[in-house]
Amino acid sequence: MEHDYDVVTAHPDRLPGDAASIYDEDGAIEPNFLKNVAAAVSAGNAALVRQLAGDLHEADLGALIAALEPDLRAAFIKLMGSDFDFAALTEMDHHIRDEILAELPNETVAEGVRDLESDDAVTILEDLDAEDQAEILEALPPVDRAQLQRSLDYPDYSAGRLMQTTFVTAPPFWTAGQAINIMRDTDEENLPDSFFEIFIVDPAHRLLGNVFLDTLLRAKSSAKLEDIMCSDRRRVEVKEDREEVARVFQRYNLVSVPVVDEAERLVGVITIDDIVDVIQEEADAEVKALGGVSEQEELSDTVWWTTRSRFPWLFVNLITAFIASSVLGLFEGSLQKMVALAVLAPIVASQGGNAATQTMTVAVRALATRELSRANALRVVLREIFVGVLNGAAFGLITGLVASVWFGFAGIGVVIALAMLTNLVAGALGGILIPQALNRFDIDPAVSSSAFVTTVTDVVGYASFLGIATVWFGLA
Amino acid sequence: MEHDYDVVTAHPDRLPGDAASIYDEDGAIEPNFLKNVAAAVSAGNAALVRQLAGDLHEADLGALIAALEPDLRAAFIKLMGSDFDFAALTEMDHHIRDEILAELPNETVAEGVRDLESDDAVTILEDLDAEDQAEILEALPPVDRAQLQRSLDYPDYSAGRLMQTTFVTAPPFWTAGQAINIMRDTDEENLPDSFFEIFIVDPAHRLLGNVFLDTLLRAKSSAKLEDIMCSDRRRVEVKEDREEVARVFQRYNLVSVPVVDEAERLVGVITIDDIVDVIQEEADAEVKALGGVSEQEELSDTVWWTTRSRFPWLFVNLITAFIASSVLGLFEGSLQKMVALAVLAPIVASQGGNAATQTMTVAVRALATRELSRANALRVVLREIFVGVLNGAAFGLITGLVASVWFGFAGIGVVIALAMLTNLVAGALGGILIPQALNRFDIDPAVSSSAFVTTVTDVVGYASFLGIATVWFGLA
Repeated sequence: MEHDYDVVTAHPDRLPGDAASIYDEDGAIEPNFLKNVAAAVSAGNAALVRQLAGDLHEADLGALIAALEPDLRAAFIKLMGSDFDFAALTEMDHHIRDEILAELPNETVAEGVRDLESDDAVTILEDLDAEDQAEILEALPPVDRAQLQRSLDYPDYSAGRLMQTTFVTAPPFWTAGQAINIMRDTDEENLPDSFFEIFIVDPAHRLLGNVFLDTLLRAKSSAKLEDIMCSDRRRVEVKEDREEVARVFQRYNLVSVPVVDEAERLVGVITIDDIVDVIQEEADAEVKALGGVSEQEELSDTVWWTTRSRFPWLFVNLITAFIASSVLGLFEGSLQKMVALAVLAPIVASQGGNAATQTMTVAVRALATRELSRANALRVVLREIFVGVLNGAAFGLITGLVASVWFGFAGIGVVIALAMLTNLVAGALGGILIPQALNRFDIDPAVSSSAFVTTVTDVVGYASFLGIATVWFGLA
Repeated sequence: MEHDYDVVTAHPDRLPGDAASIYDEDGAIEPNFLKNVAAAVSAGNAALVRQLAGDLHEADLGALIAALEPDLRAAFIKLMGSDFDFAALTEMDHHIRDEILAELPNETVAEGVRDLESDDAVTILEDLDAEDQAEILEALPPVDRAQLQRSLDYPDYSAGRLMQTTFVTAPPFWTAGQAINIMRDTDEENLPDSFFEIFIVDPAHRLLGNVFLDTLLRAKSSAKLEDIMCSDRRRVEVKEDREEVARVFQRYNLVSVPVVDEAERLVGVITIDDIVDVIQEEADAEVKALGGVSEQEELSDTVWWTTRSRFPWLFVNLITAFIASSVLGLFEGSLQKMVALAVLAPIVASQGGNAATQTMTVAVRALATRELSRANALRVVLREIFVGVLNGAAFGLITGLVASVWFGFAGIGVVIALAMLTNLVAGALGGILIPQALNRFDIDPAVSSSAFVTTVTDVVGYASFLGIATVWFGLA
């Protein structure tokens, strides 16, 4: 019988126990250790570099490289030579990785990529320009090359880009004992470094089910795999978006999921450690989008890149600020007659903006986690309106009292209280409806909501305060 | 030889293949299905309820319960009877869970908790009041009770609260073959539902190492566990904060980690599925904190709770808005003489606030991920200042041109351009330094930065624009 175990790549689950010591209490690389490594690299002392960093876990190695001065990074890798684990390059932000890859000869990269898990190799290759990518693939053995090329052909952010393409399969008619014996008699190097389950496939490589290793271990030797396999194993399609894959993992607390093509053929496995990175990146993107920053922005970006990437968002905000100011401009006459209005108007706008941002944050989060849907939209909108009315009344009262005392007449207090109530209700409506509307039109609400929402609260804030004041005090 | 396999609880990795069909394309529970379940619950038709929901995965069951009207939820669980999997209660937000638990008799909860993984049982019990908790624990078998009580005695948010307290252990002198044979001959019910590794412990239960199941499977039958075990397995201390545990998982791409007490005795295992929830919750907390919302806030909160929980943040903002307005108040004379200043001043403040928020977002993110530390702080601060200067110059120019045309004289353009440049540099400084300063004093920068930062940009924006204008136009 043919050995049907594909070679699966490693889970880096086995770690040196003392690796934590390279960090200081802030979680940064320990300064003295960093200085020693940098000095060894500068001196070109390969033996010392290998002695200092040779035993590090790939994650620690990646953190160390990122902490080195940019001009020492590629030199460090060259000095490490064949001791360098290219998996470390997947453990840093992609700007640093791209800079390093640009400095390394393509043969070196090809040599390093050859030993990697397919998903790590894809991570390293996917951002390279087409020419370098082709040259590196050319230098790989045909089997590896074809496999990597296939992964790279899947769309960005798809399951196909995340999966490992090597895994263990067995036919359904094998017994548990056969499976265990064959694994035991197989050469170490023909077996994967680490795996949790074997997949049961038919002759056309269609996924029939899986057997977790613990199930295999406690099954009777004579039990057929098809009788102990789990045939309703949850699976994902190879072109599925990675966010959707992450949601499946989270909802069902999975540790791994098989990936199949349109014909239900098994083409790969995605493990939870890659999904953790996806979840982290999605959260990162959402925080940055809400703060008006590109999700690609990293601390290692240049001044020029950062300036340009932040410009568009600020430009949009400038336009909204001019729109808001033009509302102030409509009331120039009133402002001239009563300068207190100019002093107080920003308070109304700002308080409305902050209340609306609270509502918007909740809405954006709930849309991202799918907690907010058509089914509960009405209830949530009503809740926000009531919250707006209550906090609008509370802050109207407080602001009204302070303003009356400050400017010495009660009228201004009444006017600002009414404007505050109006603006907090408007903010609640804007904060809850705008993200949902954008989402309906497939526009990312985290990116675009806040410009619209603050325009609403600025315009309503100025217009209500100055409008009510103009009528109340007869300023027109 | 004594069987040394503890019973480990299940990973819910085996799933019905058709469970996805209860969702519509928005990811909400399919409305017709929901209506049918609700009708069956209202009619008290237990058989129909069980037929509709009996085969659901715990995650889908949790989603279904959360989608039901509040007054049907406990009734649904009572009708499901012994078919109800209490693990479903861990798959919904804690407000809903707490409301349901309050309605269920303590004996029912005790009965349901008995079958759960210890970590799920802790999740359900930890938020109950002391009296209910004691009554439920009392109703459990002594072994379960003692184990749960111990977990509940660990601090909130510690590794001890997350871990499962059941796992498989073996002595180091066993052979791989012995281990496999004993597992195979053991009664199904005395073996865990699912596990990835066996832990090697000494007679005092101190953790010596671990053997992953794939290693066990391919080892020679005669190999001693102590020879194939991985003795430098990364571990965490039982009182470690869960955020720190999550960082270890993420940094080293772990799937599980053993938990030890002060004496290095093995007391539990944390698996990645629980850590995914921690990562998600931490990200959620950061997004909400930046938006001025309590991390506890959920869509299911009441109007009154929401209003009160949002009030303090708005109150802080009101104070900062008054501070900013008092700066405007200092220039009342200038405003009176030139009303254009009142119209334009908010633009300078708003643009500075948005630029500062970008910087602050990057800083808060980088502090959370430990990318920003003392080692690179100076470089990052300088980068932000340069970005502030460049975007300040760009937006100074644009705003200056528009303002000159709008109000028909060049002077106002020059003044607003200078003020804009000043405020964007001030915003860059505030945005990058304030989060770091707060972090140094152990104050969560995500929660507190933005109030300070926008105060800086409002005050500097108004003061620079009106100050320069007063001097330039001789308004004093």
